[in-house]
Amino acid sequence: MALIVQKFGGTSVADIEKIQNVAKRVIQAKGEGNSIVVVLSAMAGETDRLIDLAYRASDNPTEREYDVLISTGEQVTVSLFAMILNKMGHKAKSFLGHQVKILTDKSHTKARILNVDTDRINYELGRGSIVIMTGFQGVNQEEDITTLGRGGSDTSAVAIAAALNADVCEIYTDVDGVYTTDPNICENARKLKKVSYEEMLEFSSAGAKVLQSRSVELAKIYEVPVYVRSSYNNEEGTLVTKEDEDMEKEVVSGVTYDKDQAKVTIGQVPDKPGIASRLFTPLSDRNIVVDMIIQNASIEGNTDLTFTVSKKDMSEVQAILEKVTRELGATRIDYDENISKVSIVGVGMKSHAGVASRMFTALAGEGINILMISTSEIKISCVVESKYTELAVRVLHDAFGLDYKD
Amino acid sequence: MALIVQKFGGTSVADIEKIQNVAKRVIQAKGEGNSIVVVLSAMAGETDRLIDLAYRASDNPTEREYDVLISTGEQVTVSLFAMILNKMGHKAKSFLGHQVKILTDKSHTKARILNVDTDRINYELGRGSIVIMTGFQGVNQEEDITTLGRGGSDTSAVAIAAALNADVCEIYTDVDGVYTTDPNICENARKLKKVSYEEMLEFSSAGAKVLQSRSVELAKIYEVPVYVRSSYNNEEGTLVTKEDEDMEKEVVSGVTYDKDQAKVTIGQVPDKPGIASRLFTPLSDRNIVVDMIIQNASIEGNTDLTFTVSKKDMSEVQAILEKVTRELGATRIDYDENISKVSIVGVGMKSHAGVASRMFTALAGEGINILMISTSEIKISCVVESKYTELAVRVLHDAFGLDYKD
Repeated sequence: MALIVQKFGGTSVADIEKIQNVAKRVIQAKGEGNSIVVVLSAMAGETDRLIDLAYRASDNPTEREYDVLISTGEQVTVSLFAMILNKMGHKAKSFLGHQVKILTDKSHTKARILNVDTDRINYELGRGSIVIMTGFQGVNQEEDITTLGRGGSDTSAVAIAAALNADVCEIYTDVDGVYTTDPNICENARKLKKVSYEEMLEFSSAGAKVLQSRSVELAKIYEVPVYVRSSYNNEEGTLVTKEDEDMEKEVVSGVTYDKDQAKVTIGQVPDKPGIASRLFTPLSDRNIVVDMIIQNASIEGNTDLTFTVSKKDMSEVQAILEKVTRELGATRIDYDENISKVSIVGVGMKSHAGVASRMFTALAGEGINILMISTSEIKISCVVESKYTELAVRVLHDAFGLDYKD
Repeated sequence: MALIVQKFGGTSVADIEKIQNVAKRVIQAKGEGNSIVVVLSAMAGETDRLIDLAYRASDNPTEREYDVLISTGEQVTVSLFAMILNKMGHKAKSFLGHQVKILTDKSHTKARILNVDTDRINYELGRGSIVIMTGFQGVNQEEDITTLGRGGSDTSAVAIAAALNADVCEIYTDVDGVYTTDPNICENARKLKKVSYEEMLEFSSAGAKVLQSRSVELAKIYEVPVYVRSSYNNEEGTLVTKEDEDMEKEVVSGVTYDKDQAKVTIGQVPDKPGIASRLFTPLSDRNIVVDMIIQNASIEGNTDLTFTVSKKDMSEVQAILEKVTRELGATRIDYDENISKVSIVGVGMKSHAGVASRMFTALAGEGINILMISTSEIKISCVVESKYTELAVRVLHDAFGLDYKD
């Protein structure tokens, strides 16, 4: 007798047949005596269809109206899902963001959930109904529809699980868990049984696409156990949970990579206070995320500054920097798009020495030159030439013995 | 400076280009100093697409969920419309049934509007915004989405106009007004400048498809002036309004026909009290609408009973009658699907004698046999063989001089 929140993504509900399969899985969990809240995304392709409509209506769609438009995607899925459960003989009702009430702030297209009103959900669960909720959407205080941004349904599911104090939040997706690294480039990749919130956050921000970062942050704050599982099989997935002693025995939990990185080096910047601020403020004003930043020691009053941004932002970055560096008196800018970031992640790093040097040695052993290094408490990232990406991942996976442990 | 409610149907907003054209028309009305509330249907074809999805999910879709599903159609249109007005530089906001609040009863898929909360509309109009409302949908007291049935957007528009005490409700459609008869079968058909609510109701129930009957009833109760106009040109349409002296000068306003009729005759029914009730109660229990009913004088204790139903209900009617007539001891049932109903409508009938006989004479002049007759205060209907339908319409149009008057 547990209270379970199950979230299914767009590919799991892409057509009527797939929705029927998902419905059977939900009915099974219900039949085992559990109370079930289902959170659904739009059918795969539907959100893109709606976005296309929006951009055919306007090259700059009003954000409030954009949210009204694309929130119809989940509305379609939840109603079909409830019909199918009803047809199969089960009590089920769909609810939209404004009905339950998922209260968010006012930031249309990227709203944050402020509160989930659980009265109506609990009432329906008490009547023995399966509750079907739209992911991705809420309402602000004016009752205007808001959406949470791409991947927001993960966040909806975790927020609802937190509000209901659910026993577990199951995120069903097209992979069957969190792996030590990408199985497509490393055949020894192994599914993890358990991973800490902190590691999962680093995995997400380092390029792994399994869970939306914001949903992991929320799960961490409210200590919601999150299971990442496949909607296509019954294998045990990966539990994302609080750090425990088991985890700390492992030095490294996984290796990730991110090819969507570009490197910018500004040479011979006069080394004066306020320089970094004058460089990076115009970038953050344009919502450009700067990832790694390295400033070299000053030589003869000048300094070199290197940082990475997403490849898609490069043309905008170039336009901004051309102006700023002229004002600063910098003499040289280099842009390099042929780079990747390779990272190792693990809560065990905190209590194990020599992790970084083992990483550098492993890369050097294959002749891979390290262009930049950045470290956090549980992650070490190296920027390398992009042609070495896959090799670097396999070397590190091997160097930290990730294929053996369990 | 008028307050105008403008309703556009699905064919008028079938794609982005058409929505842009409608937007220009709305902007023009606004530019003339009016306050504008726009009521929109789903893009043509969208509701059918959603209904198809529902029936692929379940052969008997839950009505509550069906309403959640198909109400997305109008939600898409209103958001696109608001985006387009915004892009053209005009203040505009979309509102759904639950946001404004269009309160309905609980009858999913055929709900009736109980109340329209005008606070938010008036607030937005006061700010100079164009208010864009979803037609066809509302919410019940549980905040569940309800829909009003096919053609319900006309009713939404009239209800909103009534609640706002609007100066006029303009219904834009693909015809440019109400005609004396169907121009496709009578080239002399003439657009009416004005028609009374009562006549419009008779036109609608007699087969003319211009306005949903319920919207006309509502307009009559709240005395909302309704303009039927074309969304493709700027011609003056037809004003549906209170009966006035001008109207009474005309004997007949129009000729309508309905080919979707079938005739049932039950012969030699024992003429006892309660017979009609025992025949028609099982039909009404199955929601079968019986239109004209005629009972012949009793001969030797037996009577003949003739009535008409919609063609689509015929097989169900046959199944029911076979059982009932056996119990009643009736000896004969005839079914005839080769019939049509031809009607003349006009408020002037009330004050003019000899209208019926002029109708019968005109039909007889062309050798058209009358199979059934029924009359109301402002309508006379004759059932004729269906092959005579078009001829009968033209003959009556001519006999009452409908092509001359203006």
